[in-house]
Amino acid sequence: MKNQTTLSLDAMGGDAAPTVVIEGAEIALVRHPNIKFLMHGDESQLKQLLEHHPSVAAASTVIHAEATVSMEDKPSEAVRRGRNTSMWRAIDSVRQGDARAIVSAGNTGALMAMGKIQLKTMPGISRPAIAGLWPSLNGETVVLDLGANVEADEKQLVDFAIMGEAFARVELGIRKPAVGLLNIGEEELKGHDEIRSAAQTLRTSVTDMNFIGFVEGSDIGMGDVDVVVTDGFTGNIALKTAEGTARQFAAMLSVAMRRTWLSKLGGLLAASAFRALKHKMDPNQSNGGVLLGLNGIVIKSHGGTDKNGFASAIEVALDMAESDYAEIIHRRLASLESARKSSANSDEPEGAGDTSKDAVG
Amino acid sequence: MKNQTTLSLDAMGGDAAPTVVIEGAEIALVRHPNIKFLMHGDESQLKQLLEHHPSVAAASTVIHAEATVSMEDKPSEAVRRGRNTSMWRAIDSVRQGDARAIVSAGNTGALMAMGKIQLKTMPGISRPAIAGLWPSLNGETVVLDLGANVEADEKQLVDFAIMGEAFARVELGIRKPAVGLLNIGEEELKGHDEIRSAAQTLRTSVTDMNFIGFVEGSDIGMGDVDVVVTDGFTGNIALKTAEGTARQFAAMLSVAMRRTWLSKLGGLLAASAFRALKHKMDPNQSNGGVLLGLNGIVIKSHGGTDKNGFASAIEVALDMAESDYAEIIHRRLASLESARKSSANSDEPEGAGDTSKDAVG
Repeated sequence: MKNQTTLSLDAMGGDAAPTVVIEGAEIALVRHPNIKFLMHGDESQLKQLLEHHPSVAAASTVIHAEATVSMEDKPSEAVRRGRNTSMWRAIDSVRQGDARAIVSAGNTGALMAMGKIQLKTMPGISRPAIAGLWPSLNGETVVLDLGANVEADEKQLVDFAIMGEAFARVELGIRKPAVGLLNIGEEELKGHDEIRSAAQTLRTSVTDMNFIGFVEGSDIGMGDVDVVVTDGFTGNIALKTAEGTARQFAAMLSVAMRRTWLSKLGGLLAASAFRALKHKMDPNQSNGGVLLGLNGIVIKSHGGTDKNGFASAIEVALDMAESDYAEIIHRRLASLESARKSSANSDEPEGAGDTSKDAVG
Repeated sequence: MKNQTTLSLDAMGGDAAPTVVIEGAEIALVRHPNIKFLMHGDESQLKQLLEHHPSVAAASTVIHAEATVSMEDKPSEAVRRGRNTSMWRAIDSVRQGDARAIVSAGNTGALMAMGKIQLKTMPGISRPAIAGLWPSLNGETVVLDLGANVEADEKQLVDFAIMGEAFARVELGIRKPAVGLLNIGEEELKGHDEIRSAAQTLRTSVTDMNFIGFVEGSDIGMGDVDVVVTDGFTGNIALKTAEGTARQFAAMLSVAMRRTWLSKLGGLLAASAFRALKHKMDPNQSNGGVLLGLNGIVIKSHGGTDKNGFASAIEVALDMAESDYAEIIHRRLASLESARKSSANSDEPEGAGDTSKDAVG
């Protein structure tokens, strides 16, 4: 039997909070009865709701917070004026060591800003990143950064690869995840200098990573790569584009199904298959975005999540909390550091050094 | 009755050339019997094939070219050694004024490099861009740049907006296309400085453009924006991601359809609807990529195009050739230039000037 793990919940974050938070917790408790929750938010509202969810009530300690970060608040404002919000308090529980991880469906920018201030960035990591789970043909793909940073230099991309790999090991259970750098296909336009140098570093200095080189946008959902690394601008555009295309495909499918009586009948017969597919492509299902690179586990659920989406975010938090994820990252960073030092100190670089000036690709 | 328009074809470019080129030309001729072709490629091979396609033979002049640019050639090499290729010669026909436009399904990088050298960039335009037609919920959306440049500064993004707008007017027949700049959603992370300043310029100095501001990746296929402007790196990633997602959705749909006998039956009944949908989401169908910003019309068809795809590329070439597209761009650039001058000379900027220092969004 697993030990009891305490998770901190921002009960007021997200479009359908706090209902969706409590209902999500209820689903998670069915599968993992040992979780305990610190539930931050409006005490009277929460206690009233909890009356109808006895299992959640039994597993939760309600901690009152007067205020709520709204979805429209600017991160800087939320930080300046938000010490009495459920989000700030929920993160504080992790900082204090009272909870192993925090889950919020609230404002992403505010969560990242408050997370950075309270938990600080991991030693050796230059910038935290937002990682997401992307549905693929044979499971899920970790994609990062999804928008924590607008740009990323070589060091940051390498950090992202290391953090994404650790996350894939813990969350997808893959021992040696295939890691790729997102790039464009044209031979002589192979991306920015940052991407080329990051590829070079990953190839030569992070020796036992299963780095497969450059991947294109079309590879993300195909299931041949487990971790896709990119800057936050590109990652966010790719994510939104994929969501839009899936929605577009679903809309066109439903129009096509209504065109003739034969296709209408076909559509009716296949309705449950369509529902299953929609479920699979639904961002709510795999929306456990994670803020990687902080000294503490911060899970971001989709703002418009339903209870199932929030339950999966709780499960991601649990996986991370019970893992040695931070240790994996520390070990990788330490070995990268020593590889860099030895390559800098050595007059006669061995192996890796020979190719360090070759163009990539 | 329309005048006769002569188009130059790189008959050897693309995975299935020259067959697909000749068969594509045949389809285009059914709809537009007045087109004449200058067909560049291996004379004996082409003449042999043309025996089976009398309508194309009658409309074509075959011009022999000894060599072919391969899909793997690097653009710089293709340019250095490729003056005897069908691609170079086909572009040369436009430069010489013998044809109004050139269509190639060959190597994109080489086509762009040769196009730049032979046709030169339009006066006032800093960099050419590749524009594509993206299937949307109510038609098609113009997206550019799709990979001609890895980065884009403010001036280039503004140029892209102007070129994309002109292309949408000609190709989609929209008098005042809605133009958007691709960006990410987070409030305080609203993209790079370049994007913010480009938005500012488009808002204040390109006065009668229907500029709708920032759009996100999920907006591209929804049909509310007609022209989506971005740098070539982001555009290429977005395009490939959308293609991958559509393929992924189709693959998952076909698995879902085979799961139960009921859904199997449904799938059979709805088979024609599925085919129509696949056809609609097929990049081959709307693959008339255009190299905008050159002194001549260069249309890029997908390398793996089928005959229908090549026929649509020919039709895009025809639309462009019979339009005043270059004129539209020249007028816009001239008015932008005078707006810039008047704003620089004026001590007391009127209207637009007042907001020029406001943050965007």
